[in-house]
Amino acid sequence: NTLYRSDPPTTGPSSLSFRSHTCGELTAHHVGERVSLCGWVQYLRQDMFVILRDFSGLIQVLIPQEESASHLKSVLFDLTVESVIKVTGTVRQRPAGQENKRMPTGEVEILAESVEVFNVCRTLPFEIKDFVKKSESLRMQYRYLDLRSSQMQKNLRLRSQLVMKMREYLCNVHGFVDVETPTLFKRTPGGAKEFVVPSREPGRFYSLPQSPQQFKQLLMVAGIDRYFQMARCYRDEGSRPDRQPEFTQVDIEMSFVDQAGIMSLVEGLLQYSWPAEKGPIKVPFQTMTYEEAMRDYGVDKPDTRFSMKLMDLSEVFLSTEINFLRSALSQPEGSVQAIRVPSGAKLFSGKDLENVKQTAKTQFGQELSVVLVNEDGTLKSVLKKLLSVSVTDELLQRTGAEPGDLLLIAAGSLHTVRPLLGNVRLLCAELLESRGVSVRDPSAFRFLWVVDFPLFLSKEEEPEQLESAHHPFTAALPEDTQLLYTEPHKVRGQHYDLVLNGCEIGGGSIRIHNASEQLYVLKNILKEDPSLLSHLLEALDSGAPPHGGIALGFDRLVSIIVGAPSIRDVIAFPKSFRGQDLMSCAPDFVSEEELKSYHISVKWPTERGGEEEK
Amino acid sequence: NTLYRSDPPTTGPSSLSFRSHTCGELTAHHVGERVSLCGWVQYLRQDMFVILRDFSGLIQVLIPQEESASHLKSVLFDLTVESVIKVTGTVRQRPAGQENKRMPTGEVEILAESVEVFNVCRTLPFEIKDFVKKSESLRMQYRYLDLRSSQMQKNLRLRSQLVMKMREYLCNVHGFVDVETPTLFKRTPGGAKEFVVPSREPGRFYSLPQSPQQFKQLLMVAGIDRYFQMARCYRDEGSRPDRQPEFTQVDIEMSFVDQAGIMSLVEGLLQYSWPAEKGPIKVPFQTMTYEEAMRDYGVDKPDTRFSMKLMDLSEVFLSTEINFLRSALSQPEGSVQAIRVPSGAKLFSGKDLENVKQTAKTQFGQELSVVLVNEDGTLKSVLKKLLSVSVTDELLQRTGAEPGDLLLIAAGSLHTVRPLLGNVRLLCAELLESRGVSVRDPSAFRFLWVVDFPLFLSKEEEPEQLESAHHPFTAALPEDTQLLYTEPHKVRGQHYDLVLNGCEIGGGSIRIHNASEQLYVLKNILKEDPSLLSHLLEALDSGAPPHGGIALGFDRLVSIIVGAPSIRDVIAFPKSFRGQDLMSCAPDFVSEEELKSYHISVKWPTERGGEEEK
Repeated sequence: NTLYRSDPPTTGPSSLSFRSHTCGELTAHHVGERVSLCGWVQYLRQDMFVILRDFSGLIQVLIPQEESASHLKSVLFDLTVESVIKVTGTVRQRPAGQENKRMPTGEVEILAESVEVFNVCRTLPFEIKDFVKKSESLRMQYRYLDLRSSQMQKNLRLRSQLVMKMREYLCNVHGFVDVETPTLFKRTPGGAKEFVVPSREPGRFYSLPQSPQQFKQLLMVAGIDRYFQMARCYRDEGSRPDRQPEFTQVDIEMSFVDQAGIMSLVEGLLQYSWPAEKGPIKVPFQTMTYEEAMRDYGVDKPDTRFSMKLMDLSEVFLSTEINFLRSALSQPEGSVQAIRVPSGAKLFSGKDLENVKQTAKTQFGQELSVVLVNEDGTLKSVLKKLLSVSVTDELLQRTGAEPGDLLLIAAGSLHTVRPLLGNVRLLCAELLESRGVSVRDPSAFRFLWVVDFPLFLSKEEEPEQLESAHHPFTAALPEDTQLLYTEPHKVRGQHYDLVLNGCEIGGGSIRIHNASEQLYVLKNILKEDPSLLSHLLEALDSGAPPHGGIALGFDRLVSIIVGAPSIRDVIAFPKSFRGQDLMSCAPDFVSEEELKSYHISVKWPTERGGEEEK
Repeated sequence: NTLYRSDPPTTGPSSLSFRSHTCGELTAHHVGERVSLCGWVQYLRQDMFVILRDFSGLIQVLIPQEESASHLKSVLFDLTVESVIKVTGTVRQRPAGQENKRMPTGEVEILAESVEVFNVCRTLPFEIKDFVKKSESLRMQYRYLDLRSSQMQKNLRLRSQLVMKMREYLCNVHGFVDVETPTLFKRTPGGAKEFVVPSREPGRFYSLPQSPQQFKQLLMVAGIDRYFQMARCYRDEGSRPDRQPEFTQVDIEMSFVDQAGIMSLVEGLLQYSWPAEKGPIKVPFQTMTYEEAMRDYGVDKPDTRFSMKLMDLSEVFLSTEINFLRSALSQPEGSVQAIRVPSGAKLFSGKDLENVKQTAKTQFGQELSVVLVNEDGTLKSVLKKLLSVSVTDELLQRTGAEPGDLLLIAAGSLHTVRPLLGNVRLLCAELLESRGVSVRDPSAFRFLWVVDFPLFLSKEEEPEQLESAHHPFTAALPEDTQLLYTEPHKVRGQHYDLVLNGCEIGGGSIRIHNASEQLYVLKNILKEDPSLLSHLLEALDSGAPPHGGIALGFDRLVSIIVGAPSIRDVIAFPKSFRGQDLMSCAPDFVSEEELKSYHISVKWPTERGGEEEK
């Protein structure tokens, strides 16, 4: 196995390797060079060519036809698809007319001189060709084959480059310290989504944390000043589509910084690390208050790639005779709101409209009124005969509805009507797109900060009792701090969410750095047992600097950048939506014997639905 | 809170911050500049100075003494140690004679103009001063205070910079792809050291893997070509000193590479990322076979910073009358071996020698013979009268023993005698150092590759049965491959260990990439059930490239570089040797109710040592 290397590369992807070049890098510039390539047999063509593939692309290898090369010829002919070989040969220009313009290496081919077969491939469960559709479960079971596809290769490589650039920005440009925090930690009280890990001490368990929140704050108290980590986080949510039991977040915390500082940092971070091929992104990002987002989009993570904003029609219907509108307006925070779907009347079928109404009903328990604007400007709606001419005119004028448009109207409490229409707005965008209307530019990246969130929300089951909108460590807006002690439900927090194309990809806050304020929030407002966080309270009392941070959902961010339908497409070995690894069959049974050292035993469910010991 | 910034830095450690500079960076060059500094009150001095600290160092702040500054003065006077403040003021040269040469900022001081108190510090359990000794448990309980020490700040920052440079080298210089692999995986059969994680499916458990070994190989089958990861790994070993239940390894795998390629890569990696202040390291590293290491140092991870090698004296005693030597030499692989401890006779006390002999006895069940060379060249030893003049001469000549030296002689099977003397060698080095002799240069970094390990070892309890010396995926040396099928115990593996100053800091191998060879090893040699690794065998059969890799123990490497006595000193939040987080009290009890969704219950140990259900 003596290797021919004309000039072995000392850096780059072919350094220290059996090959001299990658398949995909060869162009007319290399003509005449003797090269060694390693890769997979993509296919054989016309009994004359082997198409060889590595991560960088494809190259055509010409099989010599002379009698003297009969051995080489027979070895190459016998190769099965996906076998792994090394080919040594000379780069030559393809004969005129035989170039392949759609192939980056299509101007050249390799005249093979020798071949080494590293491994012969058996018949595979599916072909490694981009056009071959595979079921999700087959892809997962044979993930090592699925990852050979050019799309998955691109996704994982882009992910790696993105994280590298982020690290450069944080470490090299802004002096952040990469600190690894433990994943075997103490269970958060009521942390129902935390995996437990039994220890060898009877009854004692570690817990896999959902984020390094406590550690990042403790690192600030420790004077680390600027911390970041590509943090592995864990969340046990059972079966939920497109969630993973383990995921990665870009976890950041800074001392001596305010909200504007963190926001600038993140804008710079994304701008610096953004893949060049996706076009530049502009900073600063748009900022919107929570109140504005709810008012205009009915959701705290608006997709600002398109308009179709919510419109308040309460005034139009102030003196209406229509019963359900009147009763809606008379209730506290009652409102009539609408969205206008351009060309909706023209493009949506009766069934479409039924589906939209059904969604409103099942998800929000609300009626949705449909008003179609006919091409002649007249309305088609069950409400039509109840609407006076002046109200009709005002309705059309206020909403800007034009012939062919669709108005969707909901009435009730703002707390229901806004989320309802926010949801319907997205549904209608999808419907329009399925009818061929361009609503959201798939190549656009619209970043948005949402700020001034309420610090506390009423608990659903117990409205008098407040809970943290995000987490109990978020500081109040400076101008609202005094309200903590008088009207806590009115307090806005120094919390900021980062939204990209309607997905929340990050969230953070300036934290409470004063121990007595933190104690007051935990004890008096949230009615929680502060002793469970005594180490954090003690730390705040030991010289804690003002600090704040953010966490970005890295898997989601990458999936949006590459346009993947699921975060599973940017994770090398994801779990199925039921939390299983279909390749190795994890989770799997463990013998009672093996569980002994952890002092646990399995409680098997009985047929009646209860559980019993085995 | 309006901030004065003469020229706010847009990059570096003070970008986006309340401060304009860090405390430690100020020198005479800054004289006259108005600066804002944030930090902790280290101490107050002479009622005139506040010594302010941040991660970068200390600076002296001069409290103005004029009547007009009385408010500022009283605020600063009232500050408790470790309170957090922001000071704005002007940098000025210290008056002549008041410079502090031992302080990097000792030429200047800040004349305070204003102060903002961010947080007042209560009395702490220990002072944040480098000379204050704290107990290990106090350090762990108040880790966020312990981390404020200049040594811990240095350690964590050096660690972060080291990993950044490693990433640059791997990603940017050699085209590696950073891929995150799952930590919720399937239990390895017999993986007694793997933590289990109960899932919501009754009886099924994930397992936290000890390394991403299977995933890294599957990534090569997947065509990722070059993978690396700073991989979090888990190992449940109960209580063991200086081991951590979770730790980090630099995990590397490459396709189309041989052993020399991986070794070059790692040499380049360490050279590139090595901290400048520790001096350059030379490549290539020394290489030694396993056989040479055992022969000369009695251990497979020799500390080559000093000699004191093992010497074979079998020939000297070939015709000896001494019973125990004769019987040792007559047994299979029998040998008489010795080490010479320079000045050992002069420096070691009788009690020292007793301790060394005791270690030999308790750890290896072996007698150790002691020969002291007196200053006049005569010997002092119980063997003395049994040694003829010629044997004595030969002994002294062969060992090079000089007056004042100590010879330690052991006889028996090489398998016992070598490890025994290897151990005694290190013990004697420590003893010599405790007597003030310089044996090992504490600033030296001696890297060493150990290669040509045996691929299989006899099982202790069942010597006829072989087990993998490292793991079952290691390929044989090409020239030994045929022996797999005839004399597997003689096969050497393509395994390489990296040793630094006598610590194993890494190990890796070229893997088996042929499915039938892998199956043969698992089934016929190791007698394991291959179905448990069916996914890996299937992968090897699906076009696996030749590949190999390595894993470096990152915590240990950093601890050696910074000269820390324990890996706990380079981990932000380590567990105690009993696996506990003393700050948060993890692991902790979890209610039976919370365990229900995982279908497990705790088996409490009974008083008689058994277990029962609660």
